[in-house]
Amino acid sequence: MPHIVVEYTANLRPEAALGTLLPKINAYLIAQRTDSGPIFPLGGIRSRAVALDDWCIASGDDAEAAFVHVSVKVGAGRDEATSKRVFDGLFELLKAHFAASYARRGFALSMETATFGEAGTWKHNNLHARISAAAAAAAAAAASVSATAATTAISAPDSAAAPPIFAAAVRAAHPV
Amino acid sequence: MPHIVVEYTANLRPEAALGTLLPKINAYLIAQRTDSGPIFPLGGIRSRAVALDDWCIASGDDAEAAFVHVSVKVGAGRDEATSKRVFDGLFELLKAHFAASYARRGFALSMETATFGEAGTWKHNNLHARISAAAAAAAAAAASVSATAATTAISAPDSAAAPPIFAAAVRAAHPV
Amino acid sequence: MPHIVVEYTANLRPEAALGTLLPKINAYLIAQRTDSGPIFPLGGIRSRAVALDDWCIASGDDAEAAFVHVSVKVGAGRDEATSKRVFDGLFELLKAHFAASYARRGFALSMETATFGEAGTWKHNNLHARISAAAAAAAAAAASVSATAATTAISAPDSAAAPPIFAAAVRAAHPV
Repeated sequence: MPHIVVEYTANLRPEAALGTLLPKINAYLIAQRTDSGPIFPLGGIRSRAVALDDWCIASGDDAEAAFVHVSVKVGAGRDEATSKRVFDGLFELLKAHFAASYARRGFALSMETATFGEAGTWKHNNLHARISAAAAAAAAAAASVSATAATTAISAPDSAAAPPIFAAAVRAAHPV
Repeated sequence: MPHIVVEYTANLRPEAALGTLLPKINAYLIAQRTDSGPIFPLGGIRSRAVALDDWCIASGDDAEAAFVHVSVKVGAGRDEATSKRVFDGLFELLKAHFAASYARRGFALSMETATFGEAGTWKHNNLHARISAAAAAAAAAAASVSATAATTAISAPDSAAAPPIFAAAVRAAHPV
Repeated sequence: MPHIVVEYTANLRPEAALGTLLPKINAYLIAQRTDSGPIFPLGGIRSRAVALDDWCIASGDDAEAAFVHVSVKVGAGRDEATSKRVFDGLFELLKAHFAASYARRGFALSMETATFGEAGTWKHNNLHARISAAAAAAAAAAASVSATAATTAISAPDSAAAPPIFAAAVRAAHPV
């Protein structure tokens, strides 16, 4: 979690640079934090884009009209203010991504959010452990560089290891 | 809003005339009215059909069996009796559309409806403004025709402009 | 009902033997019973698999990472303990099916369940009647075999006819 689905009418291809959208969405979600750390566990973020080959907008008269509909599902447990801030920001990202298309043609962009788990969720995910292992390896490498560096600069910060350690920490906070 | 998704098993193609279904669904929804005007804003109606290439029905023994599942999502705010009438009518339309397939083979048609906004909805849609602009242009053209016609027939009605003006009105009533 | 949707990243093909998954899921659901008979009506079980061609997992760094997300929707009316047992078993089946992929690569398997009918469900399904007719034919054939067999073995059981009769019975209990 979270899961993101981007449905788009196929007439937006290639104009809307859809290949760059999912990494951009994920990077945005990864960057979202509260004082206690990242909001979403890195290994739980999964986005997909689905092209629609058969659609009809309004009366169907405007063949150039297009739409994008984004569904976001997150696990329960985030407070409402945080969720709203995160989702508002995500929608701004989407508006910016599609601004040129929006300016040029009939265009409807919509986003809905929902919470998983109404009637149950099951998970089996080795990405957290893999990200953790990668983080540990990076931390070990950084510590080794630090130790070496310490011979010339005692105060060299360990900051290179921080992001992966953060990723491990948030995993504990939001088990997925 | 509303959003309609028609999932269908690919073995219904081409027999089920799926190319004609979405415009038919949209036309039905556009035509739904209460005393205060159209129920759905014209620029908010978006339908799509998704072919399923990989499916299994029951035990999988009957390769000719087929199914169609339709999901309808609408914004909150319509009363229950109106919604039921609209959805019952939509399901009758679907039954009629697939009647020949239903008569000929194993066939399961199902429809579910849900309300958007449980956990939030965001919208950015220029279709309303475009439809409005088209309506204004049509109204202006009709008024100009009217004005010309008025030289010979003072009471010539302005009715040509009514449908697009209605569309603009419902937009105000149901902002999307 | 139930409806099952298996979304999977296309990089799991062909390693994950997806062609065998849906029949396996359906067979599992068909086999689920309580003391009063099958839990799901045979003619209501519909599964589909949808390949995702465009996805992004976490930061997108690991191109070999994969995910599978399974959505299960059932009609209301089963008790919670039964549902949990059935869904737990289904998730075990999924874990077993994807075990080799899980062992080999970054892999996230998730399943969510929901109940149909929050805002309405419509159904039109001839599969029940067809399955019933097939069951009746099978029962008649079995009875005829039985009757013949009875000339040599009076106590020959009618068990060959039992599964389809069960299917007819559950249809009455859970009209779909």
